[in-house]
Amino acid sequence: MTEAAARRRGRGGGGAARRAERTSIRIETAKYIERNIPNFEVLTEEALEVIETNAEIVLEEVGVNFVDNPAALERWRNAGADVTGERVRIPRGLARKLCSTAPSEFTQYARNRDKSVVIGGRNMVLAPVYGPPFVRDAAGGRRYATMADFEKFVKLAYMSKWLHHSGGTVCEPTDVPVNKRHLDMLMAHMTLSDKPFMGSVTEASRAQDSVDMCKILFGEDFVPENTVMTSLININSPMTFDDVMMGAMEVYAENNQACIISPFIVGGAMAPVSVAGTLTQVLAEVLAGVAYNQLVRPGAPAIFGAFVSSIDMNSGAPTFGTPEAALITYGAGQLARRLGLPYRSAGSFCGSKLPDAQAAYETANSLNMGLLSGVNFMLHSCGWLEGGLVADFEKFVMDADQLGVLHGLAKGVPVDENSQAMDAIREVGPGGHYLGCAHTQANFKSAFWKTELFDYKPFETWDEEGARDTRALATSRVDHLIANYQQPEMDPAIAEALAGYVARKKESMPDAFS
Amino acid sequence: MTEAAARRRGRGGGGAARRAERTSIRIETAKYIERNIPNFEVLTEEALEVIETNAEIVLEEVGVNFVDNPAALERWRNAGADVTGERVRIPRGLARKLCSTAPSEFTQYARNRDKSVVIGGRNMVLAPVYGPPFVRDAAGGRRYATMADFEKFVKLAYMSKWLHHSGGTVCEPTDVPVNKRHLDMLMAHMTLSDKPFMGSVTEASRAQDSVDMCKILFGEDFVPENTVMTSLININSPMTFDDVMMGAMEVYAENNQACIISPFIVGGAMAPVSVAGTLTQVLAEVLAGVAYNQLVRPGAPAIFGAFVSSIDMNSGAPTFGTPEAALITYGAGQLARRLGLPYRSAGSFCGSKLPDAQAAYETANSLNMGLLSGVNFMLHSCGWLEGGLVADFEKFVMDADQLGVLHGLAKGVPVDENSQAMDAIREVGPGGHYLGCAHTQANFKSAFWKTELFDYKPFETWDEEGARDTRALATSRVDHLIANYQQPEMDPAIAEALAGYVARKKESMPDAFS
Repeated sequence: MTEAAARRRGRGGGGAARRAERTSIRIETAKYIERNIPNFEVLTEEALEVIETNAEIVLEEVGVNFVDNPAALERWRNAGADVTGERVRIPRGLARKLCSTAPSEFTQYARNRDKSVVIGGRNMVLAPVYGPPFVRDAAGGRRYATMADFEKFVKLAYMSKWLHHSGGTVCEPTDVPVNKRHLDMLMAHMTLSDKPFMGSVTEASRAQDSVDMCKILFGEDFVPENTVMTSLININSPMTFDDVMMGAMEVYAENNQACIISPFIVGGAMAPVSVAGTLTQVLAEVLAGVAYNQLVRPGAPAIFGAFVSSIDMNSGAPTFGTPEAALITYGAGQLARRLGLPYRSAGSFCGSKLPDAQAAYETANSLNMGLLSGVNFMLHSCGWLEGGLVADFEKFVMDADQLGVLHGLAKGVPVDENSQAMDAIREVGPGGHYLGCAHTQANFKSAFWKTELFDYKPFETWDEEGARDTRALATSRVDHLIANYQQPEMDPAIAEALAGYVARKKESMPDAFS
Repeated sequence: MTEAAARRRGRGGGGAARRAERTSIRIETAKYIERNIPNFEVLTEEALEVIETNAEIVLEEVGVNFVDNPAALERWRNAGADVTGERVRIPRGLARKLCSTAPSEFTQYARNRDKSVVIGGRNMVLAPVYGPPFVRDAAGGRRYATMADFEKFVKLAYMSKWLHHSGGTVCEPTDVPVNKRHLDMLMAHMTLSDKPFMGSVTEASRAQDSVDMCKILFGEDFVPENTVMTSLININSPMTFDDVMMGAMEVYAENNQACIISPFIVGGAMAPVSVAGTLTQVLAEVLAGVAYNQLVRPGAPAIFGAFVSSIDMNSGAPTFGTPEAALITYGAGQLARRLGLPYRSAGSFCGSKLPDAQAAYETANSLNMGLLSGVNFMLHSCGWLEGGLVADFEKFVMDADQLGVLHGLAKGVPVDENSQAMDAIREVGPGGHYLGCAHTQANFKSAFWKTELFDYKPFETWDEEGARDTRALATSRVDHLIANYQQPEMDPAIAEALAGYVARKKESMPDAFS
């Protein structure tokens, strides 16, 4: 497909330029969100202190397990922890002290520097869904994801104005051997998009491949000094750090690349059923994880992660958009800020099997709480379906449209003279109409966020046009975006070098499918 | 249908009791929300002062119109306003001073005193959609609303746990003459439900009918001393108070009944396109409206209302769930609290024609902001569709289910010993599982909010059961609730007196349909 795109670009000259002008799609990427609104804080000072104290008690008295990882145990022992077998008990205050060397914000560079993002502070960076083995769309139904699906999602993310980040495993390309698919996924992010992306975490060697490919893309000298990947390191909650994830994290930390250290919690199963109890465990886990990250390389960028869902006590299924998950997300944001770490949480979470009303209620609940809880990096911000088993094409563009709402909300309320609009109120007066007044004419283009998807036509028009629901409108938008996709330029020497790396790596290993 | 219900109850004895036991529906009404979380505030102190100052300038220099209402003009003149024609210019500080006699919270009594609500403070009371001329459901499509639809909605509201209030014109019963339908609507709220309700505002005489019928229901002496109705008085924005709405408001104020004084704003049409400009106008309008309400009767309960939507600059249609509407809603909450008035805003707002994903995103955005902005009375909290033109049966139960999420969020984060769950964390330890631990067993029943509607079954089960979307699940729930509806008890003498009042009134007037 890289070739096909190259041919398309190669047709070149005036015809292509005219075609590009005619297209109704402008490939525009919004700057990451800079909040001009406060964070919503549900924990009182007293509650924060109780939870922070309890987390230290958990680390000291219960401890955490570092599995099959003697080097990690050695690092902990040297740092002053009490190591018995694989159990690491961390004296009060030690983990928090170790975390203090992690930066409170950092830049992740994109190959298109205009799309580099600053993660931390009052910013929020939005990245798409991560991890589903299945995809779904209206035409094809639910099916195993393939590399072609993956590439389609990368293109959609590239074309989506409100997405700042290309993400990582947008879906699992199950048609590519498991030990080689990370190479194709990285290649897709690097060549089909120019937004920042994530590295592989399924084995230390694959993290190393990610670093090596980034050295080709960004330059051998650039990578060790600058962050070009943010990768997802899940903690095996409760309080277990497995060698696979830690192996990948060690590679990234050694290379100054960012990691999200993220408890993966289904409340009631991997954490207590109470909000305060879950927050205690989340904090303990993140403290241990980030502390270990800093033991590997002090100053490496690390993000306080919290993936939280509740459990349906009848079926055992995870549930989304629930009040308990929201309270935990708000609370974890406060804990992250007090630790001085960037915060990752929330997303387009839902349990629904279809991109229907259930999916949208749950997703909107989660997106809103993500913005207000002070999330700095929102993975899964669009496309998530069925508890994360499915990446849905229609929902991807539906959610991506809603991300514009978050951008609008984050602007806050300016009160400069133009915003005060006193001339307009005087001009219009009682019983008048603002549509024609000078202030409206001067400001209407930028005044309101505008959907690219939803329908606000009169009922009769909508009915005549086929009475389409949101999913049907989204099908059209997916097709439209893909039809208008144009691959971003890349130095052919770099493209060739990347392709060569992938080819050599693939040849060096037999296929593995599990 | 009142008779039918009476017959059903009348079948009586052991059979009915057993049937009642077998039914899976318990008719349970949650207590109104008491927030244990902070309000979300987007306006800085500086912004608040700018807006408050500007609103006073608007009242003094631009003024407001009281149309076809000489008595109102006389009241304003006597209070110290500058009255020229129908234009009332209010000296700085006067309106705010007049507003100070309105209570910051009040009790609205229900005939079932367990369901009385306290409006104001940190509370939130939820009432259903108000005003649509059309209804929709999956079986019947979109059609003009009838009295049978109205009664069905009242029954659904009665059966909905998270609705505290029966509302008012849940839909417009277009098959009843316009000058008589308020009688049937009141009768339905009074006899089919025992939750609090709203009065008629479409003419002063209909407001008087509402008061008179309440005297039958609550007692001749009870009504003048106690609030038994909260009614919706819309301001004709910008800054116009028409005689119909004011006539109804005067009746309610004189009888100590509560009014929501509510600007009706489509931003860019009835108010400036900017957030700060709209807030200025909203505040000026509410100040004038509540001040007038207090001129009629100092101490009458009045609510600071704000109905806000943006405009689609292409079609002119109102839009919902937008960031600008959210910022206005958050800001208006702050202004209301500084005025010391209860606050009404937000709702299940959406522009979609169907109860689909668009509807749900927009609604969830609005419901969340309603809770966090400190709304005390949320009209339209379920069932709103198509910009308020349609009351949708499926969306009614979908939204009503989501109102449970707001109840859960409002609980905040307790940090008592049980909530801290330290014993659970110690018991389970690294790598363990919380499902079986003592703390989970003791707490799981109340730990998580539980949907009555959404599907969290495994994909295969869901697929075998017909792969139903949210709307299809909602159709079943509507049918289930209606099938299990049981009319609340009422003193037969009161029922008879109410029926007699309605019959006499209807006989006294020819039918009118416009």
